[in-house]
Amino acid sequence: MSRDFPGEAGRDRLRSALEQALAEGRRHVNRGKVAAYIPPLARADPDALGAAIALPGGEVVAAGDCRHPFTLQSVSKVFSLLLALERLGPGAVFSRVGMEPTGDPFNSVLRLELAEPPRPLNPMINAGAVAVCGLLVEQLGPGSFGELVELVRAAAQSGSVDVDEEVYLAEKETGHRNRALAYFLKDLGVLRAGVEETLDYYFRQCALRVTCVDLARMGLFLAAPPGSPAPVCRELIRMVNAFMVTCGMYNGSGEFAVRAGIPAKSGVSGAVMAVVPGRLGVGVYGPALESRGNSVGGVELLVALSRRLDWSVF
Amino acid sequence: MSRDFPGEAGRDRLRSALEQALAEGRRHVNRGKVAAYIPPLARADPDALGAAIALPGGEVVAAGDCRHPFTLQSVSKVFSLLLALERLGPGAVFSRVGMEPTGDPFNSVLRLELAEPPRPLNPMINAGAVAVCGLLVEQLGPGSFGELVELVRAAAQSGSVDVDEEVYLAEKETGHRNRALAYFLKDLGVLRAGVEETLDYYFRQCALRVTCVDLARMGLFLAAPPGSPAPVCRELIRMVNAFMVTCGMYNGSGEFAVRAGIPAKSGVSGAVMAVVPGRLGVGVYGPALESRGNSVGGVELLVALSRRLDWSVF
Amino acid sequence: MSRDFPGEAGRDRLRSALEQALAEGRRHVNRGKVAAYIPPLARADPDALGAAIALPGGEVVAAGDCRHPFTLQSVSKVFSLLLALERLGPGAVFSRVGMEPTGDPFNSVLRLELAEPPRPLNPMINAGAVAVCGLLVEQLGPGSFGELVELVRAAAQSGSVDVDEEVYLAEKETGHRNRALAYFLKDLGVLRAGVEETLDYYFRQCALRVTCVDLARMGLFLAAPPGSPAPVCRELIRMVNAFMVTCGMYNGSGEFAVRAGIPAKSGVSGAVMAVVPGRLGVGVYGPALESRGNSVGGVELLVALSRRLDWSVF
Amino acid sequence: MSRDFPGEAGRDRLRSALEQALAEGRRHVNRGKVAAYIPPLARADPDALGAAIALPGGEVVAAGDCRHPFTLQSVSKVFSLLLALERLGPGAVFSRVGMEPTGDPFNSVLRLELAEPPRPLNPMINAGAVAVCGLLVEQLGPGSFGELVELVRAAAQSGSVDVDEEVYLAEKETGHRNRALAYFLKDLGVLRAGVEETLDYYFRQCALRVTCVDLARMGLFLAAPPGSPAPVCRELIRMVNAFMVTCGMYNGSGEFAVRAGIPAKSGVSGAVMAVVPGRLGVGVYGPALESRGNSVGGVELLVALSRRLDWSVF
Repeated sequence: MSRDFPGEAGRDRLRSALEQALAEGRRHVNRGKVAAYIPPLARADPDALGAAIALPGGEVVAAGDCRHPFTLQSVSKVFSLLLALERLGPGAVFSRVGMEPTGDPFNSVLRLELAEPPRPLNPMINAGAVAVCGLLVEQLGPGSFGELVELVRAAAQSGSVDVDEEVYLAEKETGHRNRALAYFLKDLGVLRAGVEETLDYYFRQCALRVTCVDLARMGLFLAAPPGSPAPVCRELIRMVNAFMVTCGMYNGSGEFAVRAGIPAKSGVSGAVMAVVPGRLGVGVYGPALESRGNSVGGVELLVALSRRLDWSVF
Repeated sequence: MSRDFPGEAGRDRLRSALEQALAEGRRHVNRGKVAAYIPPLARADPDALGAAIALPGGEVVAAGDCRHPFTLQSVSKVFSLLLALERLGPGAVFSRVGMEPTGDPFNSVLRLELAEPPRPLNPMINAGAVAVCGLLVEQLGPGSFGELVELVRAAAQSGSVDVDEEVYLAEKETGHRNRALAYFLKDLGVLRAGVEETLDYYFRQCALRVTCVDLARMGLFLAAPPGSPAPVCRELIRMVNAFMVTCGMYNGSGEFAVRAGIPAKSGVSGAVMAVVPGRLGVGVYGPALESRGNSVGGVELLVALSRRLDWSVF
Repeated sequence: MSRDFPGEAGRDRLRSALEQALAEGRRHVNRGKVAAYIPPLARADPDALGAAIALPGGEVVAAGDCRHPFTLQSVSKVFSLLLALERLGPGAVFSRVGMEPTGDPFNSVLRLELAEPPRPLNPMINAGAVAVCGLLVEQLGPGSFGELVELVRAAAQSGSVDVDEEVYLAEKETGHRNRALAYFLKDLGVLRAGVEETLDYYFRQCALRVTCVDLARMGLFLAAPPGSPAPVCRELIRMVNAFMVTCGMYNGSGEFAVRAGIPAKSGVSGAVMAVVPGRLGVGVYGPALESRGNSVGGVELLVALSRRLDWSVF
Repeated sequence: MSRDFPGEAGRDRLRSALEQALAEGRRHVNRGKVAAYIPPLARADPDALGAAIALPGGEVVAAGDCRHPFTLQSVSKVFSLLLALERLGPGAVFSRVGMEPTGDPFNSVLRLELAEPPRPLNPMINAGAVAVCGLLVEQLGPGSFGELVELVRAAAQSGSVDVDEEVYLAEKETGHRNRALAYFLKDLGVLRAGVEETLDYYFRQCALRVTCVDLARMGLFLAAPPGSPAPVCRELIRMVNAFMVTCGMYNGSGEFAVRAGIPAKSGVSGAVMAVVPGRLGVGVYGPALESRGNSVGGVELLVALSRRLDWSVF
C-alpha cells in the first residue's frame, strides 16, 4: 500500500475522490469534440470518460469508461524522448531539438522558420518529436522502434501494448502536415535519417494502443516513487517530467500547470497521462477534446483530483 | 533549524554545497554581459556573483558578493501578479492576461498581434506584467503601489525595501519599448487605466531595491513551508510558482525547468529568486547576463545547487 | 483638351465611361462598411460614391457624390513621402524606411520586430509613414507641416485644403495603435524626433480635407503629363507612383495592380487617388470599405474605368 | 525597326546604352555569390554578365556574356502562371493562390500558416508556383508540361528550349524545402494533385534551359507591342506583368519597382527577364546573386538601362 493512501481507509478515500473528480469531468465533456481527421479516432464515443490511478505497491484504482483501448498519440512523445535521452544522451538530443515552450499550436511550422538556430522549439510539439524519432532512426536504425515498444511495455507493465495497424495506416495516409514538417527539418539539416522511415517510426509510436490502467502505470513509472525499480536514470525521468509541465498539454500547458500543478501529457485520442512525482501515476481517457487538442473531461478530472488530494508540485 | 538541514551538520553541508555551486557559477560569469540600456545597470560589476539561502527557521546561509543592493526588475512581476490575484481574484486577472508560455523574447510585441483573444500570453512577459499593473491601477488606484511595497517588504522581512529613484527615472526615460507595448494594450482594450500611470507603477516595481538575503526570504515566502505564517492564500502562491516554472526565466524557462527543476524568476539586473516549494528560498545576484536576459552565473549556480541538494520538484 | 480625350467627342466618351463605371461601383457599395473608430468617419454615408477625372488641360469631368468634403487619411502618406524625398533626398529617407511591400495589415507591428534591419517595410504602412513624418520633424522642424500643406494645395490647385480640426483631434485622442508604433520606432532608433510631435504631424496630415476634384488634380499632379509644370523632380514622382502600385492599396495592392494596373492610394475615409502616368488623375470618394480598408465602390469604379479606357501601365 | 529606336541611328544609340549599362552592372558583380545548393548552379562563373534586348521588328541587340545557356529557375513561374490563366481562367487560378506581395523570402512557409484563407500569398513565391503547377497537373494532367514547353518556345521563338536534365535531377534530389511547401499545401487542400507529380512539373519548369536572346524574346512576347501576333489574351499578359512588378524580384521587388519601374522576373540561376510594356523585352544573365536571390549585376544593368532610356511605366 502506498505512502499516500495507507490501508483500506486510504484506498476508500482515493476511490471516493476519483469518483467525485470523474463526475466533475463529466460535466464538461459536452464542450468538446472528438478528433475527426482519421476514421478510427472519429468513431470514438464523445461521452466516454474514464480514469485509473496506479499506486506504488502495484494497486490500481479505476473508475468510469476504463475498458476502451485507445492509442497513445502524442503521449508517445514522452517515451521516445526518454529512449533517446537514455540511449544517445542529452547532448545529442538537444543538438537537434530545443527545450523551450511555445505559444504555437502543436503542428505549427512558423517557429521552424524563425528559430535561431533553426530547430524545433521542444520535443513535445510535432516537429520536435519527429526530430527525436529521426535521431533514433539515424543512430540506432529503424529497428529501434522495438526498443521503444519494450520501454512502453515495461512502463505499462503489460506485454500486450502494440501498434494499432488501422490507426497507423490512417495516420500514414493523411499525415501531410507532419510530412511537411519532416521535409522542412530535412532541409534544415535537423533530420538526417530518411523522411519516410522517420515518419513511419513517428506514426507507429502514435498508434501504440493502451488502456487507462496501462497509462496510469506509465505515469507511475515516471513518478519513480522511492523504492521502485529504476530501469531508466532518475535524472532523465525528471527531464521528461519537466517537459510535460512546460509543454505537455499543447498550448494549454501553462493553464494546466497553474490549475493542476503536475506533469501531464495529452494526445488527440483523448489520452492524458499524469505524473505525481515520487507518488503515483494517473491514466485518463476522454476523447472529447477542447480546441487545443486536450481531453476536456480529462483536464477537469485531473484538476479536481489534484486539488482534492493536494498533488501540486508547487 | 529546517527539515532539510537539521542541526549544525546540516548547516555545514548546506554552506559547503553553496560554496561549491558559487565556484561553479563563477566559471561561467565571463560568458555574459551586464544590461547596458540604463546607466545604473551598466555600472554593475560583471564579475559579481553572490547567493543566499533562507531556511524555514529564519536562518540564512550566504556566500559570495552578497552585499550589493540591486533592483528587482522582472522579479517584481511575481509579486504584482500575486497582489492582483489576491486582491482582485484569478477571474479578473486572467480576463486580461493568458497563462501560456511563449517562445518569444520578453519584450516581444509579435504575439499581441497574433494572439486570439488579443491579450498578452502570460504575466511574466513585459506586456503581461504591464497588463497586470494596469488592472491594479484601474481597480485599486495608483495608490495600490503602496500595497505592493508592503507585500514585498513582508515577503523579504525587511522594511528597507524601497524604490531606487535613479533606476526608476532612467527606466521611465528610456522605456520606449514598454511604452509601445502599453499603447498596444490600450488599443486592444486590455489596458483600461492611463498608460503613463500604469507605466509609472511598472517602472517603480522594477526599481524596487533589495539584497540577496531579501531575495532569498522572498523565495522562502513563496516556498510556504509547513508551519509558516500564510498571509497569502496557498493556492495563489502555487499559481505564481507554476508561472515561474513555465515562464519565469524568459525564453530560457524550459531549459531551466529541465536542468534545475524548480520555480525561479530572473531580472535584467542579474537577480534570480528561486523557490523550493515547502522547503526554502534562494536569492542570487550576478549581473552578467546571457542573451535571453538571465544571470549566467546565477543560472549555473542554481543548477549546481539543485542537483547537489536534490531540489527538483519533478 | 487632353491627348486622350480630344474635343467634345472625347469628353463625351469620358463622361459616359465614368457614368458606367460609377454604376458598376454602386453595385458593390453594400458589401462595405464605413470606418467606425472615430465619430466624424462613422457619420459618413455608406451609400455615397463619387469620382472626378482631371485632364491635362485643366478640364475636370465628375460624377456621383462629388460635393462631400472628406479627409485624405492614408492618401496623405504619398505627399509627405514626396516632400521628404524632395527636401531630404532618397538616401536619407530610405535609411529609415524600406521599399518592400508586405502581406501584413497597414497597422501591423509584427514586421517591425522581425525585419532586419529593424525598420518599417515601406512608407505606405502606418509605421513607415510615421517614420517619414518623424524624419521631416527631425530635419526640418514641426513647422515643415506648412510645407506639406503647400505641396498638397499646389497639387490640388486649391488654397482651401486645410486640416479638419475635429478629425485631427479625434485621431489624436484614439490613436493608441499609432502611438504604439511610434514608441516602437523610437525604441528601434528609427524615430529620432519627439513621439508626440511626430504623431501630431501624422494625425494632421491624415486630417487634411479635400473633395473629389481636389483629389483628381492631386492625381494629375503625379501623372505629370508632358508639358505640365514640374515643381517636383520627375524621378521622385515616379518613385511614389511605384510605391502606390506595390503598396498603395493596403494589403489589396497586388489585387488592384492585377485588376486595374495603375498607381493608386486609398484612405480609410473612403478616398482613393489614382494616377494614369503621363495622362490624367482620378479622385474617388466612397466611404464604404472592404475588410482591408479600401473603398469597395471606389475600387470597382476604378477597375471598370481602367478596363474600359485601357489605362493599365502593363 | 522599332518605334523606340528607328533606323541605324536608333540601333546605335541602343547598343551604346546597353554597353554603358553593362559596364555599370559589372562594377557590382563582385558583391554577389552564385547559388550553391546544386552543383550545376555552383559551377557558374560569378563574373559573367550579359544581356540582350529584343525589339518588335525581330531585331536583337546583345552585349557581354551572352552565349552561356542557363536555366529559367523562377522566371518559369511567369509562364506556368500564364498557361494556367489562359487554359483554366483567373477564377480557377485565384481560388488557389492570392495576388498580394509579401515581405517574406521566396521559400517562406510562415505565411501559409498565418494567411486567411490559407493559401500562398502570390504565384511568384515558391509555394504559389507549386500551387499553380498542381492546378495544371490536376486539371490538365502531367502531360500539360508539354504545353508549357510549347508556350515558352513560342515566346522565345526557339524550338531548342528544353529541360536541362542534370539541373532537373539535382533540384529533385535536394528540393526538401519545396517538398515541405508542397505537403503543407496538400494538407491545406490547396494542392489536390499528387505531391511528387506536381514537384516534378515544378522542378522541370525551373530547369528549362535558355540563352539571353531567348529570354529577351520572352520579355518581348510579354511586352506585346502593337501589331505583334497575340497568341495569348492581352489582359492575361497584363496580369502577369503586374505580378512581376509587385513580386517578380523576390523580396527586392519593391526596390526594383522604385529604381527601374518595369516588370521583371529573376531566377537563382542569375536570369532576369524584363518587360517594357508595348515596346521591348530584355534578357539578362549574371549568376552572382545578392542575398535575396536576384542577379546583382543584372539588377544594376537594368536600372541603368531603364534610367538612360526612360523605360519606367510610372
